[in-house]
Amino acid sequence: MSLDTVSTNRSHGGTQGVYRHASSATGTEMTFAVFVPDHAPGAKLPVLWYLSGLTCTHANVMEKGEYRSACAEHGIILIAPDTSPRGETVPDDAEGAWDFGLGAGFYVDATEAPFSTHYRMRSYIELELPALIAAHFPVDMARQGITGHSMGGHGALTIALRNPERFRSVSAFAPIVSPFNCPWGEKALTGYLGADRTAWASYDACALIANGARLPDLLVDQGEADSFLEAQLKTHLLRDACTVANQPATIRLQPGYDHSYYFISTFMAEHVRWHAERL
Amino acid sequence: MSLDTVSTNRSHGGTQGVYRHASSATGTEMTFAVFVPDHAPGAKLPVLWYLSGLTCTHANVMEKGEYRSACAEHGIILIAPDTSPRGETVPDDAEGAWDFGLGAGFYVDATEAPFSTHYRMRSYIELELPALIAAHFPVDMARQGITGHSMGGHGALTIALRNPERFRSVSAFAPIVSPFNCPWGEKALTGYLGADRTAWASYDACALIANGARLPDLLVDQGEADSFLEAQLKTHLLRDACTVANQPATIRLQPGYDHSYYFISTFMAEHVRWHAERL
Repeated sequence: MSLDTVSTNRSHGGTQGVYRHASSATGTEMTFAVFVPDHAPGAKLPVLWYLSGLTCTHANVMEKGEYRSACAEHGIILIAPDTSPRGETVPDDAEGAWDFGLGAGFYVDATEAPFSTHYRMRSYIELELPALIAAHFPVDMARQGITGHSMGGHGALTIALRNPERFRSVSAFAPIVSPFNCPWGEKALTGYLGADRTAWASYDACALIANGARLPDLLVDQGEADSFLEAQLKTHLLRDACTVANQPATIRLQPGYDHSYYFISTFMAEHVRWHAERL
Repeated sequence: MSLDTVSTNRSHGGTQGVYRHASSATGTEMTFAVFVPDHAPGAKLPVLWYLSGLTCTHANVMEKGEYRSACAEHGIILIAPDTSPRGETVPDDAEGAWDFGLGAGFYVDATEAPFSTHYRMRSYIELELPALIAAHFPVDMARQGITGHSMGGHGALTIALRNPERFRSVSAFAPIVSPFNCPWGEKALTGYLGADRTAWASYDACALIANGARLPDLLVDQGEADSFLEAQLKTHLLRDACTVANQPATIRLQPGYDHSYYFISTFMAEHVRWHAERL
């Protein structure tokens, strides 16, 4: 499991790096970003995963997320993977839409041709990348948290709900809470997994909670002025699912905030602190 | 003096806006960014100008500068202008280089053809834009500070040194301290002002200080790993000029930091606080 360093920049008392490797999960090269705060020699730091939303690469949150100050303060390593396999061999949406295919892997292992060859983001994030991170960075993998934005909030919630033993802390910014119940999710899961919805249940945070998955607690921030709230994000479905299932959850609606990194960056420091308290 | 709103986003307890107007100084449309923290009705807030570096527009610092949290905390309005006139009628570097012409106005009023028609960034920043800002935003123009990065650090220092009565606080990130003494400066000032260097003296921070201009104090941060430090930025010339002239100055070299926004964003909160204490 070798790793190429694309770039490193000193920032906020740490090192912001970008790395590339040949992924066996996706059969492509994959790029990801890691911020490592300065630390004592030999120290192992807790890890916070940040999964990005539709159209994003590793770079969006790295440039606009404003996480480094808080991560340096709390001594947390932040990892930002890409959102899909990429490359000339990787099939995209038939019409080039931005909500499926490249930049829109939805953190699933696709079973439908032609996507099943490369679109294996679940295996990549759950299995391959953690092993690579553990081998190359000063991480304490017994202390992991996960967060994400929009499609990446869906990724964070579903990956944590399927692997509660791995994550001590879970949060999300404006997550897609139920792919079963929104156009983005229906399109993506139909395309990657087929029309039979029984295969979708492990990729829907509300369904996972309804089916018994549990986390110690979770934090969600959602902008009330988010133009995707009503049709796609439907935060109330998560609130209802948590209430019915007695899943502890702090779900906050933030007046005036939209879906952009202007929103994410505003609440990033609070989320990092929330994870730090649990890591 | 009308103003079009390009966009507004709620962020960090304030409003990040982008605005466009027809500039009489440059004879073009100009775009700029303004962050306004929430404030009491009728309140007038102090202003911090941020002048950007080569190749930048208003957007770079807006996306990567990490100033909003600190500006909201201290109740400061931050204004980020563009770095040159733009448009089809605006001449660029003859070879399309990034260090002259578009994105490289150097905050001068050009006197050389064909640049003298539109490249009037000194008048734009010193005269036109302040009047526009005063007319449209809740600002207290008796409390202004100025900062900037690289070419914009040059702009901040020289504009403040020429207008000490206007600015209560001055700082810079990795500024070009002496266009007389670096290839970027020599190319730009020759192109905009002609080969006669007597016309350059009001656009060189070190020369202005040597010629008697004074500020109460100034703050400069410079990354030691900045690849432009030795050939272009030459921070030591500013240190020497300040020492010789008894100009109070806090000039800090930051080990490991480069010329990027990873550097700027690291020290942004400290600069905003430094300005807040003086505004």
